Amino acid sequence: MIELTAQPFELHNTMTSYWNDFPGIPAELEKVSSLIQTRTASHNPIIADGLASLFNGEGKLLRPGILLLAAGFGKKQEKHYKLAACLEMLHVATLIHDDIIDDSPLRRGKPTVHSRFGKHDAVLIGDYLLSQCFLLAAEYTNVDNARGLAKVIAHICSMEIEQNSDRFRVNSSFRRYRRKIMGKSALLFSLSCHVGAHEAGVSKPVTEKLRRIGYSIGMAFQIIDDILDYVGEEGLVRKSLYNDLKTGLVTLPLICALENEPSGDLKTKYFSGDFFSVDNTDSMIELIKKAGGIEGAKQYAASYTNRALLEITRLPSGTARDSLEKLTAQLLLRKY
Amino acid sequence: MIELTAQPFELHNTMTSYWNDFPGIPAELEKVSSLIQTRTASHNPIIADGLASLFNGEGKLLRPGILLLAAGFGKKQEKHYKLAACLEMLHVATLIHDDIIDDSPLRRGKPTVHSRFGKHDAVLIGDYLLSQCFLLAAEYTNVDNARGLAKVIAHICSMEIEQNSDRFRVNSSFRRYRRKIMGKSALLFSLSCHVGAHEAGVSKPVTEKLRRIGYSIGMAFQIIDDILDYVGEEGLVRKSLYNDLKTGLVTLPLICALENEPSGDLKTKYFSGDFFSVDNTDSMIELIKKAGGIEGAKQYAASYTNRALLEITRLPSGTARDSLEKLTAQLLLRKY
Repeated sequence: MIELTAQPFELHNTMTSYWNDFPGIPAELEKVSSLIQTRTASHNPIIADGLASLFNGEGKLLRPGILLLAAGFGKKQEKHYKLAACLEMLHVATLIHDDIIDDSPLRRGKPTVHSRFGKHDAVLIGDYLLSQCFLLAAEYTNVDNARGLAKVIAHICSMEIEQNSDRFRVNSSFRRYRRKIMGKSALLFSLSCHVGAHEAGVSKPVTEKLRRIGYSIGMAFQIIDDILDYVGEEGLVRKSLYNDLKTGLVTLPLICALENEPSGDLKTKYFSGDFFSVDNTDSMIELIKKAGGIEGAKQYAASYTNRALLEITRLPSGTARDSLEKLTAQLLLRKY
Repeated sequence: MIELTAQPFELHNTMTSYWNDFPGIPAELEKVSSLIQTRTASHNPIIADGLASLFNGEGKLLRPGILLLAAGFGKKQEKHYKLAACLEMLHVATLIHDDIIDDSPLRRGKPTVHSRFGKHDAVLIGDYLLSQCFLLAAEYTNVDNARGLAKVIAHICSMEIEQNSDRFRVNSSFRRYRRKIMGKSALLFSLSCHVGAHEAGVSKPVTEKLRRIGYSIGMAFQIIDDILDYVGEEGLVRKSLYNDLKTGLVTLPLICALENEPSGDLKTKYFSGDFFSVDNTDSMIELIKKAGGIEGAKQYAASYTNRALLEITRLPSGTARDSLEKLTAQLLLRKY
């Protein structure tokens, strides 16, 4: 099994530096970025200001980048930039609404939209962005892409609601949790790969492989994100730490800790039946770490990373494959 | 100018009774209704429960009904039911988010989604519905319709944010207020008419007339809705009264009152510059009524109603025109 240690996260905080080693991609992402700027422009100062803080070039544009890498297996076209812009807009719209739901104060190192403009306007800014994303998608008349986008949103919402209703509660079905926790990121990554390849005229078997690779990358990415909430450094992950646990969100480290020690200190001190309360975050996190929660979650992440890397070796060889492999390593084999 | 007195509102609380006098429409709306049920079904109990309370047959399905009436000027087809379902889903999604923003406890005579499930889940249920609406729209590959939907949402969001940022404040530009207050309803009504006619193969000039009629109907409808917040009876309008004023939302009655008496009791007692505070709702409403705010708003409503009725006379004669005229009278010439 591969070891999860490589570049520390902070080296790649911005789009340009993240994609520096991928020839052509930074220039293409500039196109995507300026398309997003144009398509989300608004005369409304609150919308303009709220979105500017999220689209100011400091995001890594991961999903657009992965879409373009997948398109590299076929013939890249102008429409790829538009589709890439759609996916990033969709992603950011869900972030805005997620941050409201999770009460997160920080995002991308800056105050979240709702902490600047209030939850009310944040709901609307997210809706606005979602509608602009659909407007852009609608301009293609490609039903499959538009359907794909709509389905992903519907699924993300369902998962989020499930997660929300399970706050401060660990129920017996771990499988259910894994599905819920991981579904949201993995879906969008897998759609990025699929759409990028499909629209580039890539053969069906290769497109299908790329979709599965996107899914595995997304799974590993989300798990690592959840681990970073426990062990990251606030300045590097650019979000507030321990926010999941504080708001009762059950993620893999907690699940694995309970799996390892179903009736240990963690369970007896903080749980009453399936429910837990967080009166002392530091001590609870210590117990989760002691019970091997972080290591357990890392193993899951490593397993998805390995699955992605293995499947990548089965793709047609060439620069497209090399790039996708490099991206996967850079994204998932980071130090944490 | 036409007088705004006719059927009291309570006679038409449900879809069936509202459309009883329109041959064929109740059966067609049943189709729309069951399509909405199918397309919004969810395994998630919170989504299912939250949406059921809004789609249980007690809504009047105004926008779908108007779309079908407009389609009556040409050849009605199966796709009209799907488009009608889209518009109702879009409308209800914006209601869910609006109710969060306005802190409204009641909608359609029942507790609002956010007062039952919390604001967090309500955001997501609205997103879910929006995505299902786009999914349905995407199945047509008709770019124009999908664009129309997306544009309406974007516009509604902008207007809502503007309205939200102007709470407890009446600034000098009344024109700006009117645009803001009325834009949201009028757009969706005008889209309903336009899409219904366009997809039925109605000629361009008639389609354009219908779009304008939809706009005027929507304007009058929204103004009457705003008036009812001041003078309605809670049981009949099935929403909480005085909610606009209490939450600082400036609507036409207040604007007209200030227009009539720019430095009267209302201004001196409740305003400091452009800003007002509501420490005594009853007394403030009395002053608004005394300054002719309700009458002023009624005049605006009547003017839009008359405009719609006049334009209807210019449509090709026949049962389609008769029905649209009847609906306009039933909807706008109500007692209040």
